[in-house]
Amino acid sequence: MLHRERLSPPRYVYPGDEWKIIEKQFYPDFIGQMETIFALSNGYLGMRGTFEEGRPFYNHGNFINGFYESWPIVYGEKAYGFAKTGQTIVNLHDLKIIRLFVDDEPFFLPTADLKEFTRTLNMKEGTLTRDLLWEMPSGKLVSIKSTRLVSFEHRHLAVIHYEVTVLNSTAPVVISSEITPHRTIRGTDGDPRDTRVFREKVLNPRAKIAEDMRLILGFRTQNSLMSIGCGYEHTLDTDNPVTWESESSDDDGRVVFTVEAQPKAPVRITKWMSFHTSRKTPPEDLCKRAERTLFRAKRNGFKAILDSQKQFLADYWRVCDVRMVVNEGRGGRSAEEWQQAVRWNLYQLCQASVRAEGAGIPAKGLTGDGYEGHYFWDIEIYVLPSLIYTTPRIAKNLLQFRHSMLEKARQRARDVNQKGALFPWRTINGDEASAYYAAGTAQYHINADIMFALKKYVQVTGDFDFLYREGAEMLVETARMWRDIGFFSARKNNRFCIHGVTGPDEYNTVVNNNAYTNLMARENLWFAAGTVEDLQRKDAGLYQSLVDKTGLEYTEVEEWRRAANNMYIPYDEELGIHPQDDSFLDKKEWDIEGTPEDKFPLLLHFHPLVIYRHRVIKQADLVLALFLLSHEFTEEEKARDFDYYDRLTTGDSSLSVGIQSIVASEIGQHKKSVEYARYAVLMDLADIGGNVGHGCHIASIGAAWMVLVYGFAGMRDQNGRISFNPRLPEACSLFRFCLMIRNSLLQIELRPETAAYRLLEGEHLTIYHAEKKVELTPGAAEVVCAYAATPSA
Amino acid sequence: MLHRERLSPPRYVYPGDEWKIIEKQFYPDFIGQMETIFALSNGYLGMRGTFEEGRPFYNHGNFINGFYESWPIVYGEKAYGFAKTGQTIVNLHDLKIIRLFVDDEPFFLPTADLKEFTRTLNMKEGTLTRDLLWEMPSGKLVSIKSTRLVSFEHRHLAVIHYEVTVLNSTAPVVISSEITPHRTIRGTDGDPRDTRVFREKVLNPRAKIAEDMRLILGFRTQNSLMSIGCGYEHTLDTDNPVTWESESSDDDGRVVFTVEAQPKAPVRITKWMSFHTSRKTPPEDLCKRAERTLFRAKRNGFKAILDSQKQFLADYWRVCDVRMVVNEGRGGRSAEEWQQAVRWNLYQLCQASVRAEGAGIPAKGLTGDGYEGHYFWDIEIYVLPSLIYTTPRIAKNLLQFRHSMLEKARQRARDVNQKGALFPWRTINGDEASAYYAAGTAQYHINADIMFALKKYVQVTGDFDFLYREGAEMLVETARMWRDIGFFSARKNNRFCIHGVTGPDEYNTVVNNNAYTNLMARENLWFAAGTVEDLQRKDAGLYQSLVDKTGLEYTEVEEWRRAANNMYIPYDEELGIHPQDDSFLDKKEWDIEGTPEDKFPLLLHFHPLVIYRHRVIKQADLVLALFLLSHEFTEEEKARDFDYYDRLTTGDSSLSVGIQSIVASEIGQHKKSVEYARYAVLMDLADIGGNVGHGCHIASIGAAWMVLVYGFAGMRDQNGRISFNPRLPEACSLFRFCLMIRNSLLQIELRPETAAYRLLEGEHLTIYHAEKKVELTPGAAEVVCAYAATPSA
Repeated sequence: MLHRERLSPPRYVYPGDEWKIIEKQFYPDFIGQMETIFALSNGYLGMRGTFEEGRPFYNHGNFINGFYESWPIVYGEKAYGFAKTGQTIVNLHDLKIIRLFVDDEPFFLPTADLKEFTRTLNMKEGTLTRDLLWEMPSGKLVSIKSTRLVSFEHRHLAVIHYEVTVLNSTAPVVISSEITPHRTIRGTDGDPRDTRVFREKVLNPRAKIAEDMRLILGFRTQNSLMSIGCGYEHTLDTDNPVTWESESSDDDGRVVFTVEAQPKAPVRITKWMSFHTSRKTPPEDLCKRAERTLFRAKRNGFKAILDSQKQFLADYWRVCDVRMVVNEGRGGRSAEEWQQAVRWNLYQLCQASVRAEGAGIPAKGLTGDGYEGHYFWDIEIYVLPSLIYTTPRIAKNLLQFRHSMLEKARQRARDVNQKGALFPWRTINGDEASAYYAAGTAQYHINADIMFALKKYVQVTGDFDFLYREGAEMLVETARMWRDIGFFSARKNNRFCIHGVTGPDEYNTVVNNNAYTNLMARENLWFAAGTVEDLQRKDAGLYQSLVDKTGLEYTEVEEWRRAANNMYIPYDEELGIHPQDDSFLDKKEWDIEGTPEDKFPLLLHFHPLVIYRHRVIKQADLVLALFLLSHEFTEEEKARDFDYYDRLTTGDSSLSVGIQSIVASEIGQHKKSVEYARYAVLMDLADIGGNVGHGCHIASIGAAWMVLVYGFAGMRDQNGRISFNPRLPEACSLFRFCLMIRNSLLQIELRPETAAYRLLEGEHLTIYHAEKKVELTPGAAEVVCAYAATPSA
Repeated sequence: MLHRERLSPPRYVYPGDEWKIIEKQFYPDFIGQMETIFALSNGYLGMRGTFEEGRPFYNHGNFINGFYESWPIVYGEKAYGFAKTGQTIVNLHDLKIIRLFVDDEPFFLPTADLKEFTRTLNMKEGTLTRDLLWEMPSGKLVSIKSTRLVSFEHRHLAVIHYEVTVLNSTAPVVISSEITPHRTIRGTDGDPRDTRVFREKVLNPRAKIAEDMRLILGFRTQNSLMSIGCGYEHTLDTDNPVTWESESSDDDGRVVFTVEAQPKAPVRITKWMSFHTSRKTPPEDLCKRAERTLFRAKRNGFKAILDSQKQFLADYWRVCDVRMVVNEGRGGRSAEEWQQAVRWNLYQLCQASVRAEGAGIPAKGLTGDGYEGHYFWDIEIYVLPSLIYTTPRIAKNLLQFRHSMLEKARQRARDVNQKGALFPWRTINGDEASAYYAAGTAQYHINADIMFALKKYVQVTGDFDFLYREGAEMLVETARMWRDIGFFSARKNNRFCIHGVTGPDEYNTVVNNNAYTNLMARENLWFAAGTVEDLQRKDAGLYQSLVDKTGLEYTEVEEWRRAANNMYIPYDEELGIHPQDDSFLDKKEWDIEGTPEDKFPLLLHFHPLVIYRHRVIKQADLVLALFLLSHEFTEEEKARDFDYYDRLTTGDSSLSVGIQSIVASEIGQHKKSVEYARYAVLMDLADIGGNVGHGCHIASIGAAWMVLVYGFAGMRDQNGRISFNPRLPEACSLFRFCLMIRNSLLQIELRPETAAYRLLEGEHLTIYHAEKKVELTPGAAEVVCAYAATPSA
């Protein structure tokens, strides 16, 4: 149950446009929100959409994925095995700053008389542009245009093209292009979802290159000892008389252009920005690397970078686009608005992932530092499905990234007295960084979540080489952890029980037999056993290598199967539902209806003990299992379970609505499914959670893709069998998207009563429409299948 | 089950003596232990038994009860309602230091050639004396004698009488009597039971009086803004030529006596020390108060203070002594050793409580800063019974102290979203200071524990005035909390259930229906309802006053009764036991036998989640209820419950053995009872827990008194009916003690088959021997009752 009244009034202020997010006026109240929505990123480098002039702002975010500072976690009372070292993504120096003075008056948005204001995120071109027309009290009209991009092609490069024209007069124009250290003005008291604010200095100056209009500074972090080189170079293009001077310290710098602006004669400055980071390389060397990046970019020019950006996105959209035509009629959103919202979500998936390369995907991508830039299970359960089906190379990178952390996961398992490996609930560098075990370390399910994603990746791509070389090692260690943590309970008919864990729902912690955990652990165990058996049969050499790496004994495999086959799955005969855990039904139900709107999310208004002693959930838990392990439940069970849990779900987490929409769709609750789908798709653009200023919710965005593909198109892909059961919302007249399946590119085009399947690229493919087998052959025409229109809600 | 092998080898190094604890040689390895054992305190001022010369030492502890520094609790991840401010008892300036130089050579215990060494805690005189004979490499023989006391009569006063005599030569003797700030050299990493170490300055100098041999310094604490004045004055008495000079800064000082010592001519220095503290009074004023205390003490002289100390203790022992004659035979402890150990425990009760006045009793008394000097439920459940029966005025002070915190307890209840009041789990100033809610705030049972002690106090003393004026207000607010936190559960036959709490056993946290909590909450509710009803009937004025103070509505009382009468008490038909909580029996049993000895206590070697998911307990929980609410269980239930839980108890807490001994005794397991009783009585003197260096375990000491009275004498006092069922251990030939009951002083003298009851003072008294009523009349002879000798174990 999601209380619509409780949701913040939708702050969706963007005129409908299929490829652009456009802001038509300056909204002082939405500064934080807009910085997130207009953030640019390539998965490695991220810059929030702050204004060039630097003020006003909510959070000058400039981030490198995986570039963090560490700090000792202090506990009021600590205990054995508590995580020791926190990690927080560093908010870097801001290179975007370009201050403008005309007639020595600073340009300042909140007080400027703006005749025109347009900010546009162009998702086809990969740019953020701003067009302003400023009328000064003196009557002078100044046009200010900027175009900003973070390059997809050149991972370490960002650029701002800045153009000022005094239209109706001459005027002295001063443009100060700067690099400034990050300064915190926000506190974060009270909201555990925000980042940590460092009061102490994080980046220590270590190197510097300063020449002409170029400045590159090198730093090392205080505790984590990571290094960075970052800086700028400029290209100046104008017919006006200009002088300029540079100045810099070890920690900041600026190039100040002084222009005698003539009427209608533009001043154009291209500010090239580069960031290089490393764990080992000295800052001096990184400065040199940044210098080379800047040289090359400047030599090729702005047009070239614009073209490469456009080309990169053309390739992206060819596979990843979702075309949707929705006619909601009067009072509803326009078709352009729906298409816009869908594409914005897809664009964020691109921005968060395409150049991550060796890192994970932070909970907020690189659009903000909420959750400290940590990697959670969000990657595997919410984001990887879309990547597996559209950009499998990136999905593989992310799984490889987990594999690179395996040794630390082994150590973490030992730290908490378990065998095998335990992946960290939240981390940047592989060490557990959760300082609240009840909603952190206790979420052992992350082991199974990662293995679930591995299985999907292998089944969809056919990449058994990765499975056998790297996946199998993770499978052995995770299976060991499950076997070790659980036990065969005499009081439960010798079923295999897992106690003292927290499932996805963080409003019920440290419980026994969380159904989601047990179900997913069973999958983990089965997949591990099956993989080891296959490997032994198929490749003696790789099998031996696995044994060498893990000390595997074959009897372990039998133990895994025994545990999995006897896994205890809670079920209540009376209610006909799967209780979320052993004590869930015993609790007093939370009075959601009677809770004032301003008391949500509950976690900000109630002591954890109060929440834990009630039957209330933050987010889909058992319902998530209904979706992920759809084949393990009957239709009736799904319907009963969904009805039971939907009512108890506050939706205080953004991870909920997408999953609820998919399950509602499957069980025929179309009205509810569409309602939840709206929330999922609009979560960030309409700031439904009220905290998009912290960054966008990448997991929710991944869920939005799943809503479309698993919900509306009704795809299911258990054990590699791909089927579609379309359930197009009534208002939708066209819905078209593509999936990459084992090197084949499949296009699915749905209309209200027909589904057309076409192989755009690749080999022969067998899929299912409802229960009907559909064979798709290269070069052949599309196969059109009929289905019953989704009934009116 | 307590693994004897797991216990540290008993470090009981004191020759048997009925009234003294004597150390016959210097034990370098036992420094921390000895500092605790020889600590002096009057309940307000405490000084650890460090040596006068200041080195070697483990912890220079100088404490004032309730004098704390506060600090913001930092959480790695915080949540709503978490305690905000930590409090730690301040380790004050050390005034005890008296350094000695002979021939300019410093006297240093570890390297000195000692011909004699005796340290004696004299429990009859209230002094700590040290007699040394030092042979210097030059052949000079130096006698060093000191007598130290913390005055019971004069709350702010301590004194050291120091005497040096060069026996066989002349020699220059320098005696430097000092005050030095506390300097931390210990870390506390890893043990959550230790104190917090402040790295920053806590005491800021604010005032100073320096004159002649007198120095008094005034300070204010950095954060808590408490003030203190402390200092010394000296009396010099010698026939030797002496010069002396004083020097001081704002933070330290010394008086240096230079003596031309003649053979056999002693130098006697009396060092008077005083501490005055306050929350409000300026340090300047406190320095003046200290000065007055010092003047008066010096004027009266050392003999007077010794006499007053002796007189105070004579009064104490007259009521509080427990005489015990034990003959264990060969290989056992001597009668003197048993008497000594018993008296040391009783002496600690005196030291911890007699002049507390307005404060509580810290977990370690004032013998150390373990647990940060915090007050826990230890006071009410473990220590108050002995005080109620021996020094009821002090028991009342402690209950009044809780009442003085009621407003903060009301606020704390609101902080955690509950009605009524919630007393803090650990505190100094009344604010919750527990930074780990699972073993802190979740221990709601503290509310019921305090009310349980209140009931016992009223029933034993007959002080209904206190009950109606102050107790009733606490009863109303605690009952409200219970009614609010629980609910009538349809799944439990509409029984009243209490979820999400932690019982006394901290190895099972945040559970549903902890049996102890539910039983004690029921008592709390019944007592509250009964008291309000009585008050309404008996005293309309006081009733109205209660209504005014609490906004009580009479329907609430009915609600409390309804909740209490329908309280759910877990019971397992199959095992015939009371499960500790709803999920206790479902857990996997911990393999105690298979756990290596060095892995205890578990809390220092296993992650809390690992402990929580197993069936293992740290300390008596349900077994404590068997004792406190003995009348609620049948004999058979007690026997089955005890057997079940005894096996699962690690005894990782010192709170366990005493309670287990009492219950074992009641159900006839005499061998086990005596074994546990030994551990209870010897806990600190033999350093059974291995951490007596942190301070002595006052709760365990209180439990030792209960082992004697409730265990061996078999006293039960449910609802004011006082009965005895003696179960004297086989080896015990005489056991005599007194109880104050409603202003009557009752002496109980047990011999193996007879019990003699005599009224020493006061009014007629009715008690029960077994089920037989015994009427005791003033002036009458003792009543002798027979009973069957305790069977051989």
